[in-house]
Formats: sequence, structure tokens, C-alpha cells
Amino acid sequence: MSATIQQLLDNPEDLISQLKFNDAGLVGVIAQQHDTQEVLMMAWMNKEAIMETLSTGQVCYWSRFRQALWRKGESSGQVQALVELRWDCDGDTILALVDQTGVACHTGRRNCFFNAVRDGEVSIIAAVETDPQTLYGPKNFD
Amino acid sequence: MSATIQQLLDNPEDLISQLKFNDAGLVGVIAQQHDTQEVLMMAWMNKEAIMETLSTGQVCYWSRFRQALWRKGESSGQVQALVELRWDCDGDTILALVDQTGVACHTGRRNCFFNAVRDGEVSIIAAVETDPQTLYGPKNFD
Repeated sequence: MSATIQQLLDNPEDLISQLKFNDAGLVGVIAQQHDTQEVLMMAWMNKEAIMETLSTGQVCYWSRFRQALWRKGESSGQVQALVELRWDCDGDTILALVDQTGVACHTGRRNCFFNAVRDGEVSIIAAVETDPQTLYGPKNFD
Repeated sequence: MSATIQQLLDNPEDLISQLKFNDAGLVGVIAQQHDTQEVLMMAWMNKEAIMETLSTGQVCYWSRFRQALWRKGESSGQVQALVELRWDCDGDTILALVDQTGVACHTGRRNCFFNAVRDGEVSIIAAVETDPQTLYGPKNFD
């Protein structure tokens, strides 16, 4: 970890004061593959998840369903290495540039946005690349 | 408008039933430039905004601040032509592939994600391309 990122972690208000957390203490996060620019997924972080992501270099979300930190890929191995953390003009959405190992979606697809209106009809536009059973066994997400 | 998209608009439940609107009746929307894959902005749509976006081919959001439909670019001219509407595995986020005219951000930057942790420090990483005064005059967003 660089000396400057350690300084930011020691005194995170430079970052945190620019973010607008919602009533649940969360900010939306878009994960984008840093080189192909594919949008992989959308999730949420609280302050603790942001700090962990910056300190470890591995993306950590907040699971609204489990009400717990969600270290992406902890059980499946489909981790996201952080490349850069950005946020928008009004501070309520983060854009995380990441390097995704394997597939981002719990369905085994590379990204979560596989439903579309295409040719005027609702369609599934991406195939499953990895059987979710091989990723999770009896579990069904992370 | 194609015959099939008209059928979908006449009977939108094929689409709407796949979406999970929050307590405010909204679903998050990521706007991405269709060819460069630049992530432009994040906003919200309700059912009415989704239907208008599909029927007109111009992206229409719901403004939480104004509590009204937000026809992107209506006053600034910085419109977003819809290329494809996608949504994610759990139906709570839309990915709108668009063709952005001019700049997406009310600050006059091409996209809204111009704040970053870079080299361990909080930085502004994109320049203003268009003076907001020329876009909005006394107003300050759309």
C-alpha cells in the first residue's frame, strides 16, 4: 500500500465527506471492468466497505440481503481487484474500476445485465459461462 | 417504432414484471455510451419514465429532486438517444445504452464520475468541456 493511500485511510474524511450516503448509510456502486469497460454489476457499499476496499485492494460491498460485509468472491473465487475508485458529481454513486476474475454474476454470466429489450421483445442476451453449482455448491450467491 | 415494440408498450408486463421497483417506485439506471462504453451517469426511472423512454427513443428519467419526469437534455440539448435497454439479474438496476449528445454531466463534463482516489489522493480527473452557463443559463441541471 502506498504511503498516500495509508494517509487517506488514516484520515478518510477527504473522501467520505464527498459522498452522500442514503438513509441506510449506503452508496450505490457500479463495477466496471477496467480494460474492456464492460459494466459488470451494481451493488452497495457503506463506509466500512469503502475503507476495506481501499485498504485491501479487493472489492468489498455491503449486502443488503445479509446485512453484512460482502467480500466479493470470498466463497466463489470470482474476486474483483480494485483498479480505481471514482464517484459522481453529487456523490451518491461510486464507479469502481475493477479486474474481475471469472464471472461477476451469480447466474454464472460474465455480467449481470443479460436481460434486454431487443428487436422490441424481452430477451436474454448472454449465455451462462460457468455453472453456478461449480461456483457456490449449495449456496447461490456472492 | 417497430410493431413489436408497440406490442410491448401496449402490454408492458413482460418487462415491468421483471423489474423490482423500490419503495419510491423507482429503479436505478446506469447510462453508458453505447460505442465507447464510457459510463456517463446514474439516475432513476419509474414505470412511466421507462415507458416514455421506450416509446420515444429518448431517455427520460424520474427526478427525485423535482419529483417529476426528467426528459434528459430537454433544456440543455444534451439528449440521450436510446440504443438498448438492459436490466440485471435481480431486476433492480437498468443499464441504458445510449448515444449521448454533448456532455452528460451538469458540470459540463462528459461524464459524472470525475472524482477519484488516484495515487492515494482524492483528485478531479476530468476537465469541464462545456461551460454549464452555456447549457443552462440560470438553471443548473438537467
